[in-house]
Amino acid sequence: MSLQFGPDYVRAIAPYQGGKPIAEVAREFGLDEAKIIKLASNENPLGMPESAKQAMLKAVADIGRYPDANGFDLKQAITAKYDVPQEWITLGNGSNDILELAAHAFVQPGQSVVYAQYSFAVYALATQAVGGRAIVVAARDYGHDLDAMAKAIDKDTKLVFIANPNNPTGTFLPAADIEAFLKKVPQDVVVVLDEAYNEYLAPEQQYDSVAWVRQYPNLLVSRTMSKAYGLAGLRVGFGIAQPAITDLLNRIRQPFNVNSMAQAAAVAALNDTAFLQKSAKLNADGYRQLTTAFDAMGIEYVPSYGNFVLFKVGNDDGAGARVNVALLKRGIIVRPVGNYGLPQWIRVSIGLPEENEAFIGALKQVLA
Amino acid sequence: MSLQFGPDYVRAIAPYQGGKPIAEVAREFGLDEAKIIKLASNENPLGMPESAKQAMLKAVADIGRYPDANGFDLKQAITAKYDVPQEWITLGNGSNDILELAAHAFVQPGQSVVYAQYSFAVYALATQAVGGRAIVVAARDYGHDLDAMAKAIDKDTKLVFIANPNNPTGTFLPAADIEAFLKKVPQDVVVVLDEAYNEYLAPEQQYDSVAWVRQYPNLLVSRTMSKAYGLAGLRVGFGIAQPAITDLLNRIRQPFNVNSMAQAAAVAALNDTAFLQKSAKLNADGYRQLTTAFDAMGIEYVPSYGNFVLFKVGNDDGAGARVNVALLKRGIIVRPVGNYGLPQWIRVSIGLPEENEAFIGALKQVLA
Repeated sequence: MSLQFGPDYVRAIAPYQGGKPIAEVAREFGLDEAKIIKLASNENPLGMPESAKQAMLKAVADIGRYPDANGFDLKQAITAKYDVPQEWITLGNGSNDILELAAHAFVQPGQSVVYAQYSFAVYALATQAVGGRAIVVAARDYGHDLDAMAKAIDKDTKLVFIANPNNPTGTFLPAADIEAFLKKVPQDVVVVLDEAYNEYLAPEQQYDSVAWVRQYPNLLVSRTMSKAYGLAGLRVGFGIAQPAITDLLNRIRQPFNVNSMAQAAAVAALNDTAFLQKSAKLNADGYRQLTTAFDAMGIEYVPSYGNFVLFKVGNDDGAGARVNVALLKRGIIVRPVGNYGLPQWIRVSIGLPEENEAFIGALKQVLA
Repeated sequence: MSLQFGPDYVRAIAPYQGGKPIAEVAREFGLDEAKIIKLASNENPLGMPESAKQAMLKAVADIGRYPDANGFDLKQAITAKYDVPQEWITLGNGSNDILELAAHAFVQPGQSVVYAQYSFAVYALATQAVGGRAIVVAARDYGHDLDAMAKAIDKDTKLVFIANPNNPTGTFLPAADIEAFLKKVPQDVVVVLDEAYNEYLAPEQQYDSVAWVRQYPNLLVSRTMSKAYGLAGLRVGFGIAQPAITDLLNRIRQPFNVNSMAQAAAVAALNDTAFLQKSAKLNADGYRQLTTAFDAMGIEYVPSYGNFVLFKVGNDDGAGARVNVALLKRGIIVRPVGNYGLPQWIRVSIGLPEENEAFIGALKQVLA
């Protein structure tokens, strides 16, 4: 018998599979990096805002120093934008960190966590990592069934994850539905409302989740700067919750979890509303471009409220993987979602107009 | 009764207290940031190497993309330097991340972790965060008592932390002592050998811990790039261990834990031996400068093998805090270590010659 370490529940984890990096695809398929189009990780095709770049370059001089463990300047910027005290803010190494901190802070081995089928993969990983028992609630139309999720909450449930919009399906929950759900959840169960794609919502879909944080001491709103803010490479996310939750997250947070470059860039990006608007507009246009093509090709897709679209590429369970490889060979990186239980589907991120066009062209060839 | 979330062991954690950032001291004491000297966090007074800065600036263009979750280039550099396969490497958001990953991967609530009195504070925090039972072994001459630590290993012990050199005391364990210890540890107990300050050791003190990794499947060597490599602000550390350990760490590692700027800079810094040598030389000179002054002032200190010195400022338990505040008022930031059970002592990082001189001058005034 070979040596084994750690609890069974850790050994059972299958690590997160991210979008393939361009360099890796170039190595594997013998392609020219410059010609590869990556629409696999819901990144902002505009890259980072110039304001953030400038702020980051100013921070270079101090890289020999540890980051500010309290993130004073970044918390100030969040405070100003969302009108919450600094004591309500937890900074994360991406919102991935916020999601994991919640699992570590609130869930002991054997206790249960509720989340939806087809919701973000990190909910399952974070639950497994702490030995939690996953209560996975069947999706309704590829989105969350909040009534069923409320009913699924067990006596030992400590945490509920909700994604709005949801990744990888793109579904959206109207504010009234979430509010009705929050009213039903026992007050000792923490609800994480993961709004990673919030900035892509149209103005008429926007809602005030911070107002709910004021009302519900068991609510933790999670935000990321990896999507519309264009800072995926820097890893910045944050949580907003009342002190009963925030205190605990900060007790187990690694003190220097957000690095100095990331903190500096995030302050600038948070205040760059022009960049956010430009990103949202580009995304809305790209969504029309992709879905118009899908409609013309007779391809089924799930209406999306994020910066990506989930579309169906076949009726057999090998379809997603097969089409994925065929696209990779053509230098187009998308995301197969077999690991989400959606082996007949693929998720494509919305890119620049020419990237979307190249993807559509390659898809037509592959499906022909 | 107010609402409480999470297990008792999480609520009991007192968060890590880092060195005060310069900006914070300036705000609190009404001082000019430019005149403040920080010798509080064992940072490299040279800052980051120019090679790393240039590499980082090249990575700026890609910041809209997620980092490489597998850290291909950085692992290549580590592989080349230490002659270990990529499958033996875990990248961390600083070595703090490696230490926490070890606790999360190997320890369940109630199981025990062995570490030494006066050893790095994160061992206690990581143990608490997973609900582990701490077995704290009394120090011998402010350093690890490895014989006592081996005897302290219990039936339910899953993890041992050893720091060499140790922070905050600066003590050093010769290679033969560690090897004798490794032979005694049961093979299902993971030993973390934390070598954060390794690069400051004189050539005659250096030893080949990677050879032990080849021999002991239960050994995890932890390294940081926050000290001699000058990248504290970027957060890069790494672990080297055989796959039985490394697999598990990578299962629970956040996929994008090391950001793109950090990965790029780390590749360059790892190869910059000239910078390392310059840093070690500056440190050795600074150590002589500080200890010569301590000797002249009749101040007791623990001989140090790191880039800092622990020295005694009084015989009452208010001494460390009192002298710390008096130094802060003079714009000198050092580290009080009352939280380590050393309230009569202070830790000072070795700075540039003029910084050391300013610190000595201020200390003379304060102790006069």
